[in-house]
Amino acid sequence: MTSNLYNVCPMTRHLQLALLQHACPVDASKQDNLAACERLAREAARGGAQLIVTQELFAGHYFPQIEDEALFDLAEPIPGPTSQRIASLAAELGVTISGSFFERRAPGLCHNTTVTFGPDGQPIGRYRKMHIPDDPRFYEKYYFTPGDLGWQTFDLPSTQNGEPEIAATLQAVGARVGTLVCWDQWFPEAARLTALKGAELLLYPTAIGYYNDASEGEPQAVREQQLAAWQTMMQSHAITNGVYVAAANRIGVENDLTFWGSSFVCGPDGKVIAQASRDKEEVLHAALDLDAIEAQRHGWPFLRDRRVDAYNALYKRMDDA
Amino acid sequence: MTSNLYNVCPMTRHLQLALLQHACPVDASKQDNLAACERLAREAARGGAQLIVTQELFAGHYFPQIEDEALFDLAEPIPGPTSQRIASLAAELGVTISGSFFERRAPGLCHNTTVTFGPDGQPIGRYRKMHIPDDPRFYEKYYFTPGDLGWQTFDLPSTQNGEPEIAATLQAVGARVGTLVCWDQWFPEAARLTALKGAELLLYPTAIGYYNDASEGEPQAVREQQLAAWQTMMQSHAITNGVYVAAANRIGVENDLTFWGSSFVCGPDGKVIAQASRDKEEVLHAALDLDAIEAQRHGWPFLRDRRVDAYNALYKRMDDA
Repeated sequence: MTSNLYNVCPMTRHLQLALLQHACPVDASKQDNLAACERLAREAARGGAQLIVTQELFAGHYFPQIEDEALFDLAEPIPGPTSQRIASLAAELGVTISGSFFERRAPGLCHNTTVTFGPDGQPIGRYRKMHIPDDPRFYEKYYFTPGDLGWQTFDLPSTQNGEPEIAATLQAVGARVGTLVCWDQWFPEAARLTALKGAELLLYPTAIGYYNDASEGEPQAVREQQLAAWQTMMQSHAITNGVYVAAANRIGVENDLTFWGSSFVCGPDGKVIAQASRDKEEVLHAALDLDAIEAQRHGWPFLRDRRVDAYNALYKRMDDA
Repeated sequence: MTSNLYNVCPMTRHLQLALLQHACPVDASKQDNLAACERLAREAARGGAQLIVTQELFAGHYFPQIEDEALFDLAEPIPGPTSQRIASLAAELGVTISGSFFERRAPGLCHNTTVTFGPDGQPIGRYRKMHIPDDPRFYEKYYFTPGDLGWQTFDLPSTQNGEPEIAATLQAVGARVGTLVCWDQWFPEAARLTALKGAELLLYPTAIGYYNDASEGEPQAVREQQLAAWQTMMQSHAITNGVYVAAANRIGVENDLTFWGSSFVCGPDGKVIAQASRDKEEVLHAALDLDAIEAQRHGWPFLRDRRVDAYNALYKRMDDA
């Protein structure tokens, strides 16, 4: 709804993003999964990625399908062996990596946490999943304490990977990334609040799928609508906030669940610009033109028109009293 | 993600909804447009509609394409001739009608207002458009003062139209409808706040389209993405709130704009259950199973998991200070 006739911006900002989509078989060890992640991250870096995003809890199969006290032993402190391996990988490849971890914060206090490591291997951002689901086979409220860090963004540092002039541009003009996780993707409040902190790109490491057994109330048509709704929600976050959105999901069958892959990236107009398969291991690359955000927001000036004077009841469960 | 094995609810609640989609040619008089609306409303009632929804500002062509002081004369008080004609129509047909009006509230103070009339012809709800756009050819901020009634719902009354047992059921168990208008559809806050007031169905009378002249920065691919994004946003409101959503848009060419029709209704899972054409006059019927809402919200319990303790910054323009 706008024209770019008068766009005289002297330079454009680009970001090379890569999402890692892979299986975490039930019989694979943590070392197996870390090796798979490393292999794909190296491929992503060879392809020019500046920012690499893992799927949710990439170091193991999706353990919250059951409630078992012994599974708390999978959690690690941060820093810890798994996070340090990702930090080292970021430094070796000269890229930024957002990794998703089962964080042991204190005895009996664990989180579903994303830590982002810059190309020097140092942590530049941490987010603890704010919205925690609990459904049959997704017993996350048992394992994950709701996050207490609030809504988080980080500024992408310069990177030694990719074109030097692009790296310099990123450093000069800034590129701000917001980190959210899986269930957060169903809540427009989470996307809005992260965008209001200046995020230009929202990342959603994800572990979502459907029951293997269609007799459990999920015929194929329902499965298809679930997948469509999942993507629709994230496209809506892109549109209403004028930001890029990316989701990295796992694939494969793990016990009672089949994860639906379909990792994707969409632009600030909601259009999907990169789409992975439902069932194949993939490095999904996307080239993001960050300056498209401003033009998009001029065309659809939603941030201009929010009725911030009339949003008070959003802090209520129901507006029934 | 849930099963209905234990659903023993003894009765179901249904609602027959109809949206009116038609042209308002620039050379048509207010009487011509009212006659078109009446003709379609009668057709809707014959088809069993209990709730009928007009498109936005159905009594005339979309006048905010220019800023002209003389056009304020199109506004009418409520009650006024146009609203009274719709009230009489509701009473005659024994249905509920949500009509969209250019309201003259006081000299120099006008609103874009929806008034809903029950089957006795009495007003049962009023909403004044909260989010007001302003883009080239959509100069609404010039004409419409932002609404000050907040988020509005109404309870659908019993109706003489349709099956008597359905009418009795609606009266007994209640059916709550939320009224929003056009630009509101891009703001998840508006949908959420109306849903938190108990709305089971969100109505969006609409006037949206694209420039006739593709040279104005809107090639066909951009037009297609705008239409897709428009529908995506409203589907996301349905999904995240577990409610039905309906939009009634106009068709036809008016001066520099082509309105894209495409009125639709989607279910609480986001799936489109009724879809109108882009360019034809239509009465779009949809049968809504209101009990599907509860099952949907059990499967996707988003209202349960909102982080109301962490949403405070939603009242800010940017969270930058």
